Amino acid sequence: MVYELFYWPSIQGRGEFVRLALEEAGVQYLDVAREPGGMARMIAAMDGADHPSFAPPFLKAGDVTVGQTANILMFLGERHGLAPQDAQGKYWVNQIQLTIADLVAETHDTHHPIATSLYFEDQRPEAKRRSADFIDTRIPKFFDWFENILARPEPKDYLLGDAVTYADLSLFQLVAGLRYAFPKALGRIDAGYPLLTALHDRVAARPRIAAYLKSGRRIPFNEEGIFRHYKELDR
Amino acid sequence: MVYELFYWPSIQGRGEFVRLALEEAGVQYLDVAREPGGMARMIAAMDGADHPSFAPPFLKAGDVTVGQTANILMFLGERHGLAPQDAQGKYWVNQIQLTIADLVAETHDTHHPIATSLYFEDQRPEAKRRSADFIDTRIPKFFDWFENILARPEPKDYLLGDAVTYADLSLFQLVAGLRYAFPKALGRIDAGYPLLTALHDRVAARPRIAAYLKSGRRIPFNEEGIFRHYKELDR
Repeated sequence: MVYELFYWPSIQGRGEFVRLALEEAGVQYLDVAREPGGMARMIAAMDGADHPSFAPPFLKAGDVTVGQTANILMFLGERHGLAPQDAQGKYWVNQIQLTIADLVAETHDTHHPIATSLYFEDQRPEAKRRSADFIDTRIPKFFDWFENILARPEPKDYLLGDAVTYADLSLFQLVAGLRYAFPKALGRIDAGYPLLTALHDRVAARPRIAAYLKSGRRIPFNEEGIFRHYKELDR
Repeated sequence: MVYELFYWPSIQGRGEFVRLALEEAGVQYLDVAREPGGMARMIAAMDGADHPSFAPPFLKAGDVTVGQTANILMFLGERHGLAPQDAQGKYWVNQIQLTIADLVAETHDTHHPIATSLYFEDQRPEAKRRSADFIDTRIPKFFDWFENILARPEPKDYLLGDAVTYADLSLFQLVAGLRYAFPKALGRIDAGYPLLTALHDRVAARPRIAAYLKSGRRIPFNEEGIFRHYKELDR
């Protein structure tokens, strides 16, 4: 079976968290909307399925369709050893993933604090205000938590210890994205989070992830995705 | 074993989705922060646990601590028959719950579009702009989706058919909260969503939920929670 990922074809966005898990799992997948005629297939699939998704990404695995990023990752994690087998570990990874997702959503709102339906240019002063607070209070609050759980009970290579999980891949992507969007702020903040920074580097160096990041399958960051670099929002 | 719920003592907030599940399950639980000395216990527990939570709510079930609302609900759903047993049903309920959570987060940002760390009064014009878009485009987009999945393959009593799940309880709370926050808008919008409205009423009439809603355990909606009524934001 070949997985079918349905996501916008020109951005990393939320789909990237799924792409990273598929790549690390080393499974075959089709990035449907990037294929000829794929966008039309995606739009049709959004409404046609038994379990329609509110928005991309969603994943087709044979007869099963799963939507919502954290939910797709849980599904893939169970199937491909990217999550612990025991119930407690499974809930813990999901808890971390949902906390990552919260910061991802807040990142999106730094450039769209008023409405997704409006252009950035139509909410520029509000974006500046929101980004300032995001950089000064939100990133540090979340990073404190990530660093803290990486340090417990003693410093670890990955969030759960020796084995990589989908939450590690997502945390790599979060750090990479924030560095792209806010290079000045992150250049200053990063130094305070040695375990988090090491985790980022460790994930990036994993053979399948490293190969993926160098490939054409990795869409570059750009100003249509979640992590956007607008100079005026960085500080 | 008595469950211990850790959440802010004076608001419904995200904790309410957990309270509703505990009430429907008919299990014993302590709403820790509402007990004498409970706030101090909650603050200590946030940092003290093996698996610390980024923020309340979190739930202690014996030795296990679980955080993040949707994650807690999945945990309770599995244990108390508030979710299907099969993997596909389990993912589907989680997908719906995460979509509900997205709208809950957007609701919060209608009164705090710039920063959680600032008062509503410090972001009033932005809140007005964001709320207008929220009412005009976001509520209808989400409600369309909820109504659509309630109608498939034929109109159902609950999201998954005959049996209530934790997502139904959450959807009730979402509708109730939006009606409280935006009575004018919802008075207009509600009429277009007969299945969603019926689901709200059906959940409210379930014996344990009805008893809970009448009890002192149900904290009234207020202007400290997620669903706040500010006349100027309603339209």
